[in-house]
Amino acid sequence: MPRVSAEYLAARREHILAAAAARFARDGFHRTSMQDVIGEAGLSPGAVYRYFRSKDEIIIAISMDAIGSVQALVRDALRTHQPIADLVAGLPRAIAHLDQADVRMRLAVQAWGEALRNPDLAAALQDGLDGLRSALRERIVLGQRDGDVAERVDADAVGGVLLALVQGFILQRSWDPELSAETYGAAARDVVGGLLTRPS
Amino acid sequence: MPRVSAEYLAARREHILAAAAARFARDGFHRTSMQDVIGEAGLSPGAVYRYFRSKDEIIIAISMDAIGSVQALVRDALRTHQPIADLVAGLPRAIAHLDQADVRMRLAVQAWGEALRNPDLAAALQDGLDGLRSALRERIVLGQRDGDVAERVDADAVGGVLLALVQGFILQRSWDPELSAETYGAAARDVVGGLLTRPS
Repeated sequence: MPRVSAEYLAARREHILAAAAARFARDGFHRTSMQDVIGEAGLSPGAVYRYFRSKDEIIIAISMDAIGSVQALVRDALRTHQPIADLVAGLPRAIAHLDQADVRMRLAVQAWGEALRNPDLAAALQDGLDGLRSALRERIVLGQRDGDVAERVDADAVGGVLLALVQGFILQRSWDPELSAETYGAAARDVVGGLLTRPS
Repeated sequence: MPRVSAEYLAARREHILAAAAARFARDGFHRTSMQDVIGEAGLSPGAVYRYFRSKDEIIIAISMDAIGSVQALVRDALRTHQPIADLVAGLPRAIAHLDQADVRMRLAVQAWGEALRNPDLAAALQDGLDGLRSALRERIVLGQRDGDVAERVDADAVGGVLLALVQGFILQRSWDPELSAETYGAAARDVVGGLLTRPS
Protein backbone atom coordinates (compact mmCIF):
# COMPACT_ATOMS: atom_id res chain seq x y z
CA MET A 1 0.00 0.00 0.00
CA PRO A 2 1.55 3.34 -1.03
CA ARG A 3 2.17 5.99 1.60
CA VAL A 4 -0.16 8.93 1.18
CA SER A 5 1.45 12.34 1.00
CA ALA A 6 0.96 15.10 3.57
CA GLU A 7 -0.54 17.21 0.76
CA TYR A 8 -3.10 14.51 0.05
CA LEU A 9 -4.07 14.30 3.72
CA ALA A 10 -4.37 18.09 4.00
CA ALA A 11 -6.45 18.29 0.82
CA ARG A 12 -8.79 15.56 2.02
CA ARG A 13 -9.16 17.29 5.40
CA GLU A 14 -10.02 20.52 3.56
CA HIS A 15 -12.54 18.68 1.39
CA ILE A 16 -14.33 17.28 4.45
CA LEU A 17 -14.37 20.69 6.17
CA ALA A 18 -15.75 22.39 3.05
CA ALA A 19 -18.50 19.78 2.68
CA ALA A 20 -19.40 20.04 6.37
CA ALA A 21 -19.40 23.84 6.31
CA ALA A 22 -21.74 23.89 3.32
CA ARG A 23 -24.10 21.45 5.00
CA PHE A 24 -24.07 23.16 8.41
CA ALA A 25 -24.68 26.54 6.78
CA ARG A 26 -27.62 25.19 4.77
CA ASP A 27 -29.38 23.01 7.35
CA GLY A 28 -27.99 24.32 10.62
CA PHE A 29 -25.50 22.68 12.91
CA HIS A 30 -28.21 21.03 15.03
CA ARG A 31 -30.08 19.47 12.14
CA THR A 32 -26.96 18.00 10.52
CA SER A 33 -25.62 14.58 11.53
CA MET A 34 -22.16 13.07 10.95
CA GLN A 35 -23.97 10.81 8.46
CA ASP A 36 -25.08 13.92 6.53
CA VAL A 37 -21.51 15.25 6.51
CA ILE A 38 -20.23 11.90 5.24
CA GLY A 39 -22.87 11.92 2.49
CA GLU A 40 -22.08 15.51 1.52
CA ALA A 41 -18.35 14.73 1.34
CA GLY A 42 -19.02 11.62 -0.78
CA LEU A 43 -16.55 9.55 1.26
CA SER A 44 -16.78 6.42 3.36
CA PRO A 45 -17.53 6.82 7.08
CA GLY A 46 -14.03 5.51 7.88
CA ALA A 47 -12.42 8.13 5.64
CA VAL A 48 -14.24 10.94 7.48
CA TYR A 49 -13.84 9.55 11.01
CA ARG A 50 -10.10 9.22 10.38
CA TYR A 51 -9.96 13.03 10.50
CA PHE A 52 -12.83 14.04 12.78
CA ARG A 53 -14.55 12.03 15.48
CA SER A 54 -17.56 14.35 15.84
CA LYS A 55 -19.44 17.38 14.53
CA ASP A 56 -17.89 19.33 17.39
CA GLU A 57 -14.38 18.54 16.15
CA ILE A 58 -15.38 19.70 12.68
CA ILE A 59 -16.88 23.01 13.77
CA ILE A 60 -13.84 23.62 15.99
CA ALA A 61 -11.49 22.97 13.06
CA ILE A 62 -13.46 25.32 10.78
CA SER A 63 -13.49 28.06 13.41
CA MET A 64 -9.79 27.72 14.17
CA ASP A 65 -8.88 27.96 10.47
CA ALA A 66 -10.82 31.22 10.12
CA ILE A 67 -9.48 32.75 13.35
CA GLY A 68 -5.97 31.70 12.27
CA SER A 69 -6.22 33.63 8.99
CA VAL A 70 -7.27 36.81 10.79
CA GLN A 71 -4.51 36.35 13.35
CA ALA A 72 -1.91 36.01 10.58
CA LEU A 73 -2.92 39.46 9.29
CA VAL A 74 -2.53 40.99 12.74
CA ARG A 75 0.91 39.37 13.10
CA ASP A 76 1.88 40.88 9.72
CA ALA A 77 0.72 44.29 10.96
CA LEU A 78 2.93 43.84 14.01
CA ARG A 79 5.95 42.99 11.88
CA THR A 80 5.50 45.91 9.49
CA HIS A 81 4.15 48.49 11.99
CA GLN A 82 1.09 48.86 9.72
CA PRO A 83 -1.07 51.69 11.12
CA ILE A 84 -3.87 50.35 13.32
CA ALA A 85 -6.57 52.16 11.32
CA ASP A 86 -5.28 50.49 8.12
CA LEU A 87 -5.16 47.08 9.78
CA VAL A 88 -8.73 47.47 10.98
CA ALA A 89 -9.82 48.62 7.51
CA GLY A 90 -8.32 45.51 5.91
CA LEU A 91 -9.69 42.80 8.22
CA PRO A 92 -13.27 42.70 6.83
CA ARG A 93 -11.96 42.37 3.28
CA ALA A 94 -9.61 39.58 4.32
CA ILE A 95 -12.48 37.69 5.93
CA ALA A 96 -14.77 38.27 2.95
CA HIS A 97 -12.10 36.82 0.67
CA LEU A 98 -11.64 33.57 2.59
CA ASP A 99 -12.61 30.46 0.66
CA GLN A 100 -16.39 29.89 1.17
CA ALA A 101 -16.47 33.17 3.12
CA ASP A 102 -20.23 33.59 3.39
CA VAL A 103 -20.73 29.99 4.45
CA ARG A 104 -18.03 30.37 7.09
CA MET A 105 -19.52 33.57 8.46
CA ARG A 106 -22.97 32.04 8.80
CA LEU A 107 -21.37 29.09 10.49
CA ALA A 108 -19.39 31.31 12.86
CA VAL A 109 -22.62 32.93 14.06
CA GLN A 110 -24.13 29.49 14.66
CA ALA A 111 -20.99 28.39 16.50
CA TRP A 112 -21.22 31.43 18.80
CA GLY A 113 -24.68 30.37 19.95
CA GLU A 114 -23.71 26.71 20.17
CA ALA A 115 -20.66 27.56 22.31
CA LEU A 116 -23.00 28.80 25.06
CA ARG A 117 -24.10 25.22 25.68
CA ASN A 118 -21.08 23.25 24.51
CA PRO A 119 -18.07 23.61 26.81
CA ASP A 120 -15.60 21.93 24.40
CA LEU A 121 -16.54 24.28 21.59
CA ALA A 122 -16.52 27.26 23.97
CA ALA A 123 -13.01 26.35 25.21
CA ALA A 124 -11.67 25.95 21.67
CA LEU A 125 -13.22 29.21 20.44
CA GLN A 126 -12.02 31.06 23.52
CA ASP A 127 -8.53 29.70 22.97
CA GLY A 128 -8.43 30.83 19.37
CA LEU A 129 -9.89 34.24 20.20
CA ASP A 130 -7.45 34.72 23.07
CA GLY A 131 -4.62 34.34 20.56
CA LEU A 132 -6.20 36.86 18.20
CA ARG A 133 -7.01 39.29 20.96
CA SER A 134 -3.51 39.06 22.33
CA ALA A 135 -2.06 39.80 18.87
CA LEU A 136 -4.31 42.89 18.72
CA ARG A 137 -3.14 43.90 22.20
CA GLU A 138 0.49 43.59 21.07
CA ARG A 139 -0.26 45.88 18.15
CA ILE A 140 -1.64 48.48 20.58
CA VAL A 141 1.40 48.18 22.85
CA LEU A 142 3.68 48.60 19.84
CA GLY A 143 1.66 51.71 18.91
CA GLN A 144 2.23 53.07 22.40
CA ARG A 145 5.99 52.50 21.98
CA ASP A 146 5.91 54.18 18.56
CA GLY A 147 3.97 57.14 19.99
CA ASP A 148 0.89 56.60 17.79
CA VAL A 149 -1.36 55.35 20.58
CA ALA A 150 -2.05 57.29 23.78
CA GLU A 151 -0.09 55.90 26.74
CA ARG A 152 -3.14 55.74 28.95
CA VAL A 153 -5.30 53.37 26.89
CA ASP A 154 -5.90 49.87 28.25
CA ALA A 155 -4.26 47.77 25.50
CA ASP A 156 -6.08 44.57 26.43
CA ALA A 157 -9.53 46.18 26.57
CA VAL A 158 -8.91 48.01 23.29
CA GLY A 159 -7.89 44.67 21.76
CA GLY A 160 -11.34 43.39 22.75
CA VAL A 161 -13.03 46.40 21.12
CA LEU A 162 -11.07 45.91 17.87
CA LEU A 163 -12.08 42.24 17.96
CA ALA A 164 -15.70 43.40 18.28
CA LEU A 165 -15.34 45.34 15.03
CA VAL A 166 -14.52 42.05 13.30
CA GLN A 167 -17.25 40.09 15.10
CA GLY A 168 -19.86 42.73 14.25
CA PHE A 169 -18.87 42.59 10.59
CA ILE A 170 -19.25 38.80 10.56
CA LEU A 171 -22.67 39.07 12.20
CA GLN A 172 -23.97 41.85 9.96
CA ARG A 173 -22.63 40.19 6.83
CA SER A 174 -24.16 36.83 7.77
CA TRP A 175 -27.55 38.57 7.70
CA ASP A 176 -26.83 40.74 4.68
CA PRO A 177 -24.53 39.20 2.05
CA GLU A 178 -24.64 42.55 0.20
CA LEU A 179 -22.81 44.33 3.03
CA SER A 180 -19.59 45.54 1.43
CA ALA A 181 -16.35 44.67 3.22
CA GLU A 182 -14.76 47.74 1.60
CA THR A 183 -17.45 50.12 2.87
CA TYR A 184 -17.43 48.58 6.35
CA GLY A 185 -13.63 48.56 6.47
CA ALA A 186 -13.41 52.21 5.38
CA ALA A 187 -15.93 53.20 8.08
CA ALA A 188 -13.98 51.21 10.70
CA ARG A 189 -10.82 53.01 9.59
CA ASP A 190 -12.55 56.38 10.07
CA VAL A 191 -13.87 55.39 13.52
CA VAL A 192 -10.43 54.21 14.68
CA GLY A 193 -8.75 57.15 12.92
CA GLY A 194 -10.52 59.66 15.16
CA LEU A 195 -12.79 61.17 12.50
CA LEU A 196 -15.79 61.12 14.85
CA THR A 197 -14.12 63.46 17.32
CA ARG A 198 -13.04 67.03 16.82
CA PRO A 199 -9.34 67.17 17.78
CA SER A 200 -9.09 69.01 21.09
CA MET B 1 -65.89 39.71 35.34
CA PRO B 2 -63.75 42.76 36.20
CA ARG B 3 -61.80 44.47 33.46
CA VAL B 4 -58.08 43.87 33.87
CA SER B 5 -55.87 46.93 33.84
CA ALA B 6 -53.28 47.73 31.20
CA GLU B 7 -50.64 47.54 33.96
CA TYR B 8 -51.74 44.03 34.86
CA LEU B 9 -51.53 42.93 31.20
CA ALA B 10 -48.10 44.50 30.78
CA ALA B 11 -46.83 42.90 34.00
CA ARG B 12 -48.08 39.48 32.95
CA ARG B 13 -46.50 39.88 29.53
CA GLU B 14 -43.20 40.78 31.24
CA HIS B 15 -43.51 37.76 33.54
CA ILE B 16 -43.93 35.39 30.58
CA LEU B 17 -41.00 36.95 28.73
CA ALA B 18 -38.75 36.69 31.80
CA ALA B 19 -39.69 33.03 32.34
CA ALA B 20 -39.12 32.23 28.67
CA ALA B 21 -35.79 34.08 28.57
CA ALA B 22 -34.54 32.17 31.62
CA ARG B 23 -35.56 28.86 30.09
CA PHE B 24 -34.16 29.60 26.61
CA ALA B 25 -30.87 30.75 28.12
CA ARG B 26 -30.58 27.61 30.23
CA ASP B 27 -31.69 24.92 27.79
CA GLY B 28 -31.30 26.65 24.45
CA PHE B 29 -34.01 27.94 22.17
CA HIS B 30 -34.16 24.70 20.17
CA ARG B 31 -34.54 22.41 23.16
CA THR B 32 -37.32 24.47 24.78
CA SER B 33 -40.99 23.95 23.85
CA MET B 34 -43.97 26.25 24.42
CA GLN B 35 -45.00 23.67 27.03
CA ASP B 36 -41.70 24.30 28.87
CA VAL B 37 -42.28 28.06 28.76
CA ILE B 38 -45.79 27.60 30.13
CA GLY B 39 -44.43 25.41 32.93
CA GLU B 40 -41.65 27.88 33.75
CA ALA B 41 -44.15 30.76 33.88
CA GLY B 42 -46.49 28.76 36.14
CA LEU B 43 -49.53 29.81 34.12
CA SER B 44 -52.21 28.01 32.15
CA PRO B 45 -51.59 27.43 28.42
CA GLY B 46 -54.46 29.80 27.60
CA ALA B 47 -52.89 32.57 29.70
CA VAL B 48 -49.61 32.28 27.80
CA TYR B 49 -51.09 31.82 24.31
CA ARG B 50 -53.19 34.94 24.88
CA TYR B 51 -49.93 36.91 24.61
CA PHE B 52 -47.72 34.80 22.36
CA ARG B 53 -48.69 32.22 19.79
CA SER B 54 -45.23 30.71 19.38
CA LYS B 55 -41.63 30.59 20.61
CA ASP B 56 -40.76 32.79 17.65
CA GLU B 57 -43.12 35.51 18.84
CA ILE B 58 -41.54 35.33 22.28
CA ILE B 59 -37.95 35.59 21.10
CA ILE B 60 -38.94 38.45 18.79
CA ALA B 61 -40.58 40.30 21.71
CA ILE B 62 -37.52 39.80 23.93
CA SER B 63 -35.18 41.01 21.19
CA MET B 64 -37.30 44.07 20.38
CA ASP B 65 -37.43 45.10 24.06
CA ALA B 66 -33.63 45.00 24.32
CA ILE B 67 -33.03 46.79 21.01
CA GLY B 68 -35.63 49.38 22.05
CA SER B 69 -33.74 50.23 25.26
CA VAL B 70 -30.51 50.79 23.37
CA GLN B 71 -32.30 52.88 20.77
CA ALA B 72 -33.80 55.08 23.49
CA LEU B 73 -30.28 55.92 24.67
CA VAL B 74 -29.21 56.88 21.17
CA ARG B 75 -32.30 59.08 20.79
CA ASP B 76 -31.37 60.80 24.08
CA ALA B 77 -27.87 61.38 22.75
CA LEU B 78 -29.40 62.98 19.67
CA ARG B 79 -31.57 65.29 21.74
CA THR B 80 -28.75 66.40 24.05
CA HIS B 81 -25.91 66.37 21.50
CA GLN B 82 -24.04 63.97 23.82
CA PRO B 83 -20.54 63.41 22.36
CA ILE B 84 -20.39 60.22 20.27
CA ALA B 85 -17.47 58.83 22.27
CA ASP B 86 -19.48 59.27 25.48
CA LEU B 87 -22.55 57.65 23.96
CA VAL B 88 -20.49 54.66 22.83
CA ALA B 89 -18.88 54.41 26.27
CA GLY B 90 -22.30 54.26 27.95
CA LEU B 91 -24.05 51.66 25.77
CA PRO B 92 -22.35 48.54 27.23
CA ARG B 93 -23.21 49.66 30.77
CA ALA B 94 -26.82 50.32 29.78
CA ILE B 95 -27.10 46.82 28.30
CA ALA B 96 -25.42 45.22 31.30
CA HIS B 97 -27.94 46.96 33.58
CA LEU B 98 -31.04 45.68 31.78
CA ASP B 99 -33.23 43.40 33.84
CA GLN B 100 -31.88 39.82 33.44
CA ALA B 101 -29.04 41.27 31.36
CA ASP B 102 -26.84 38.17 31.16
CA VAL B 103 -29.77 35.95 30.24
CA ARG B 104 -30.81 38.41 27.53
CA MET B 105 -27.32 38.60 26.09
CA ARG B 106 -26.98 34.82 25.87
CA LEU B 107 -30.38 34.74 24.25
CA ALA B 108 -29.45 37.46 21.76
CA VAL B 109 -26.49 35.37 20.59
CA GLN B 110 -28.77 32.36 20.14
CA ALA B 111 -31.30 34.50 18.28
CA TRP B 112 -28.59 35.68 15.87
CA GLY B 113 -27.87 32.11 14.84
CA GLU B 114 -31.54 31.18 14.74
CA ALA B 115 -32.33 34.17 12.50
CA LEU B 116 -30.17 32.63 9.76
CA ARG B 117 -32.77 29.92 9.28
CA ASN B 118 -35.93 31.62 10.47
CA PRO B 119 -37.14 34.34 8.08
CA ASP B 120 -39.74 35.78 10.50
CA LEU B 121 -37.17 36.21 13.25
CA ALA B 122 -34.64 37.58 10.75
CA ALA B 123 -37.15 40.15 9.48
CA ALA B 124 -38.08 41.26 13.00
CA LEU B 125 -34.44 41.54 14.13
CA GLN B 126 -33.48 43.38 10.95
CA ASP B 127 -36.36 45.79 11.48
CA GLY B 128 -35.34 46.55 15.05
CA LEU B 129 -31.68 46.89 14.12
CA ASP B 130 -32.50 49.16 11.18
CA GLY B 131 -34.16 51.55 13.63
CA LEU B 132 -31.14 51.46 15.94
CA ARG B 133 -28.68 51.84 13.11
CA SER B 134 -30.62 54.74 11.67
CA ALA B 135 -30.59 56.49 15.08
CA LEU B 136 -26.80 56.02 15.16
CA ARG B 137 -26.57 57.41 11.62
CA GLU B 138 -28.59 60.46 12.67
CA ARG B 139 -26.15 61.05 15.54
CA ILE B 140 -23.26 61.00 13.04
CA VAL B 141 -25.05 63.42 10.71
CA LEU B 142 -25.75 65.73 13.66
CA GLY B 143 -22.02 65.53 14.51
CA GLN B 144 -21.18 66.54 10.98
CA ARG B 145 -23.49 69.57 11.32
CA ASP B 146 -21.93 70.44 14.69
CA GLY B 147 -18.44 70.15 13.18
CA ASP B 148 -17.35 67.27 15.48
CA VAL B 149 -17.40 64.60 12.79
CA ALA B 150 -15.44 64.82 9.54
CA GLU B 151 -17.69 65.74 6.59
CA ARG B 152 -16.38 62.92 4.43
CA VAL B 153 -17.35 59.96 6.64
CA ASP B 154 -20.15 57.68 5.43
CA ALA B 155 -22.72 58.20 8.21
CA ASP B 156 -24.64 55.02 7.43
CA ALA B 157 -21.56 52.79 7.31
CA VAL B 158 -20.19 54.34 10.51
CA GLY B 159 -23.58 53.65 12.14
CA GLY B 160 -23.02 49.98 11.27
CA VAL B 161 -19.55 50.03 12.83
CA LEU B 162 -20.86 51.62 16.04
CA LEU B 163 -23.58 48.96 16.12
CA ALA B 164 -20.81 46.35 15.82
CA LEU B 165 -19.22 47.72 19.00
CA VAL B 166 -22.45 46.90 20.82
CA GLN B 167 -22.88 43.50 19.16
CA GLY B 168 -19.28 42.53 19.97
CA PHE B 169 -19.81 43.46 23.60
CA ILE B 170 -22.94 41.29 23.79
CA LEU B 171 -21.07 38.37 22.21
CA GLN B 172 -17.97 38.67 24.37
CA ARG B 173 -19.99 39.14 27.54
CA SER B 174 -22.21 36.16 26.75
CA TRP B 175 -19.04 34.02 26.83
CA ASP B 176 -17.43 35.82 29.75
CA PRO B 177 -19.84 37.18 32.38
CA GLU B 178 -16.82 38.77 34.10
CA LEU B 179 -16.22 41.14 31.16
CA SER B 180 -16.69 44.60 32.66
CA ALA B 181 -19.07 46.94 30.84
CA GLU B 182 -17.12 49.89 32.30
CA THR B 183 -13.75 48.63 31.00
CA TYR B 184 -15.18 47.77 27.58
CA GLY B 185 -17.04 51.09 27.39
CA ALA B 186 -13.95 53.09 28.34
CA ALA B 187 -11.92 51.27 25.66
CA ALA B 188 -14.66 51.91 23.08
CA ARG B 189 -14.60 55.59 24.05
CA ASP B 190 -10.83 55.69 23.48
CA VAL B 191 -11.12 53.94 20.10
CA VAL B 192 -13.86 56.33 18.91
CA GLY B 193 -12.07 59.29 20.52
CA GLY B 194 -9.07 58.86 18.23
CA LEU B 195 -6.60 57.72 20.89
CA LEU B 196 -5.22 55.00 18.60
CA THR B 197 -4.03 57.50 16.01
CA ARG B 198 -1.46 60.22 16.34
CA PRO B 199 -3.17 63.47 15.26
CA SER B 200 -1.79 64.45 11.86
